[in-house]
Amino acid sequence: MIMSRIEAPRDDVTGNLVDRLLGGLPVEAVLVDPDVTASYANDMASFCPSGTPAVVVLPRTVEQVQHVMRIATELRVPVVPQGARTGLSGAANASDGCIVLSLTKMDRILEINPVDRIAVVEPGVVNATLSRAVNELGLYYPPDPSSWEMCTIGGNIGTASGGLCCVKYGVTAEYVLGLDVVLADGRLMSTGRRTAKGVAGYDMTRLFVGSEGSLGIVVQATLALRPKPPEQLVLAAEFASGAAACDAVCRIMEGGHVPSLLELMDRTTVKAVNDLAHMGLPETTEALLLAAFDTTDPAADLAAVGALCEAAGASQVVPADDAAESELLLQARRLSLTALEAVKGTTMIDDVCVPRSRLGELLEGTERIAGKHQLTIGVVAHAGDGNTHPTVCFDAADPDESRRARESFDEIMALGLELGGTITGEHGVGVLKKEWLAREIGPVGVEMQRAVKGVFDPLGILNPGKLF
Amino acid sequence: MIMSRIEAPRDDVTGNLVDRLLGGLPVEAVLVDPDVTASYANDMASFCPSGTPAVVVLPRTVEQVQHVMRIATELRVPVVPQGARTGLSGAANASDGCIVLSLTKMDRILEINPVDRIAVVEPGVVNATLSRAVNELGLYYPPDPSSWEMCTIGGNIGTASGGLCCVKYGVTAEYVLGLDVVLADGRLMSTGRRTAKGVAGYDMTRLFVGSEGSLGIVVQATLALRPKPPEQLVLAAEFASGAAACDAVCRIMEGGHVPSLLELMDRTTVKAVNDLAHMGLPETTEALLLAAFDTTDPAADLAAVGALCEAAGASQVVPADDAAESELLLQARRLSLTALEAVKGTTMIDDVCVPRSRLGELLEGTERIAGKHQLTIGVVAHAGDGNTHPTVCFDAADPDESRRARESFDEIMALGLELGGTITGEHGVGVLKKEWLAREIGPVGVEMQRAVKGVFDPLGILNPGKLF
Repeated sequence: MIMSRIEAPRDDVTGNLVDRLLGGLPVEAVLVDPDVTASYANDMASFCPSGTPAVVVLPRTVEQVQHVMRIATELRVPVVPQGARTGLSGAANASDGCIVLSLTKMDRILEINPVDRIAVVEPGVVNATLSRAVNELGLYYPPDPSSWEMCTIGGNIGTASGGLCCVKYGVTAEYVLGLDVVLADGRLMSTGRRTAKGVAGYDMTRLFVGSEGSLGIVVQATLALRPKPPEQLVLAAEFASGAAACDAVCRIMEGGHVPSLLELMDRTTVKAVNDLAHMGLPETTEALLLAAFDTTDPAADLAAVGALCEAAGASQVVPADDAAESELLLQARRLSLTALEAVKGTTMIDDVCVPRSRLGELLEGTERIAGKHQLTIGVVAHAGDGNTHPTVCFDAADPDESRRARESFDEIMALGLELGGTITGEHGVGVLKKEWLAREIGPVGVEMQRAVKGVFDPLGILNPGKLF
Repeated sequence: MIMSRIEAPRDDVTGNLVDRLLGGLPVEAVLVDPDVTASYANDMASFCPSGTPAVVVLPRTVEQVQHVMRIATELRVPVVPQGARTGLSGAANASDGCIVLSLTKMDRILEINPVDRIAVVEPGVVNATLSRAVNELGLYYPPDPSSWEMCTIGGNIGTASGGLCCVKYGVTAEYVLGLDVVLADGRLMSTGRRTAKGVAGYDMTRLFVGSEGSLGIVVQATLALRPKPPEQLVLAAEFASGAAACDAVCRIMEGGHVPSLLELMDRTTVKAVNDLAHMGLPETTEALLLAAFDTTDPAADLAAVGALCEAAGASQVVPADDAAESELLLQARRLSLTALEAVKGTTMIDDVCVPRSRLGELLEGTERIAGKHQLTIGVVAHAGDGNTHPTVCFDAADPDESRRARESFDEIMALGLELGGTITGEHGVGVLKKEWLAREIGPVGVEMQRAVKGVFDPLGILNPGKLF
């Protein structure tokens, strides 16, 4: 009957797994064609190994997710939860013989409440879809990773993602009030609350945010919203050195300003954007700083920040007059990663975050590392947060250059730790940085984190091989 | 030698414990006089049992805390960590034969960094001391529990405390970036970061915030600071019914306003304050709402909010013209708990938080419960957060009234859960609400929380009998 519609050849183990999954899932929710399942093997990270999934499931209900986890537990099959696979650390990469559990079909916005300022959503809702829906009601969901038009809220929660807004509005974690989670054995657990405050027991909600699917499957989230702020106004400032731009960042933050965005592009990035888009940015620019305010009088804030940039040595300060001009100034920033990708065909995007007072040292050190390895490394940074994305440009067909790219990537992380920073500000650990997590949090930290993982996943079936 | 200075009589078990503690602590840091140790038995909660500590230790260094925990682990002695004991849930109450580990002598502010906007502190620093120190540098540490002049940062972290600021600035948890924690076995673990962002591994920092000393001993904290906002301006609005005041709260929040404070006092509270302080508040006032803004143009914000209050039926709206007038308007709020205490001699302060859209129902239900039990229950609320403190006034010498007080207290929590709220918005679970935690988070939640506790405290020596 149903089984005859499954076309791909299957070995006995997979056959049994698929049969069991079909006991609680409609046939269209169970994908076994290897050509199809192979397309679910990877997220968007470079240098991350992935395996071949046995099956991809696309549940639409909490009960279906519970069914999948019960079967996975019974048969001891690893489960890799996925959103839109826009992640940059390999956290969503399949392992051999796993069930890929894609939450993309659970994509309903269940509630938006303007008095309580919350939204209740399923995990597969795309970030931009939610952002637009709440906007129409005068509300604002701040987290805005670059992939916001594609990435899902579930993925954002799994990777604790950030974005441009964080310098003023913080990261995804700060907007997750409560979760419904399907545990490894298929039981349902609710964490947190839909109230503005609450301290009943341990903060299990935050434990799940950034856990990369290694503790349970998020099937519903209650999110905090803010009132929609006024439209932001942007200022661009050019500097003759990276150090001067970083000095401006420190002056702005020390001066008590609260920009809605404070981004930095280094010389390499400015040049790459110029080469790609002919934007006419002066080639003499060694660093470009973009600041924005979404206050009631953004022009006044921009004037104050512009003066600080000049005091730090800016060669030119260009405040936008309106939203359209602001958008133009942000174009260069938005094109940065595409432009850097065009340099050599492949990029490896790092995500080192340092105390913002050490930003200049990170930029300088990255330039030194690039020189040593004879590589092009462009730095774009959420400068206000000290969160940098040093982006290594390389030819993936050149084994020696690829090796040097990987080495430089690691050296930048080591530098970040030396400067009192973290190996990942917003992209997560996944496969890419698992050796580095131990260096950051130390042996006691790893031991305790593994033990917490053991509480939720005693059989080790939840996204194995990630984080640790 | 040293031992001859210990005066109090001790049995063999306590004697051995004290001897071992003195192996790594100076004699003045080990208190054994029963009259003295008895004074460390309780925090400020009513109706919470407490035991007799075997010894009180007052370490000054991380190494001394590690020593205490090593001895406690070796001898299987329970440890109750304490700050200033201003908590309201019994979380700091001693158990029989325990070591009370007071962190009050570890009270140094180690660093304040205006560029990185962080402070690094020991746990015994008093909230007000830190607040004033950062203020002098143009910075702001928002969490402001009522006890801020006495309570410690370590206690604030242990209980995840809140305050008046939360409606705009959030709770303690949002300001804790990283922790140094001494584990049950004496090992030191660092969590989190000193950067603005970071997602390396599970969020262990947040797990400790609000854990009431049941997972480890916080010995250092890295805290996020904000730029100091402009001085706030306050408005008072009188309403002829609690429902109208709650309607105003909903209109204000739905209207996208971000007050720095939005407090409500019900009729009972207004009357108690009037009786105590003869402030001349009209006896016809059924509810008083206080709103404040610390924006660049607070008068404009107050005007807008005042109009919303009038639309909701306010009988009088009084905006302050300056800081002095604002302070006067806040006096009534600050006196509330003292005034309610004067009604019957004893109070039991609840801490139920509901979605703010349900605030009116909580007020109405509390009045019903007060009537049923023939009790005076005043409600003061952080209305913008839906976080209410229904305060049961009773004569502790009257057993029947005491019983009714306890019953009404529980009924208010049940009502809060019915309305989609939580049993504790900011005071914590401690001893007072441990039966209620299970009702809120359910059996799966309790099981997983206990299992997490087991990871950090396999011997069950960390503040036993709290939370679960």
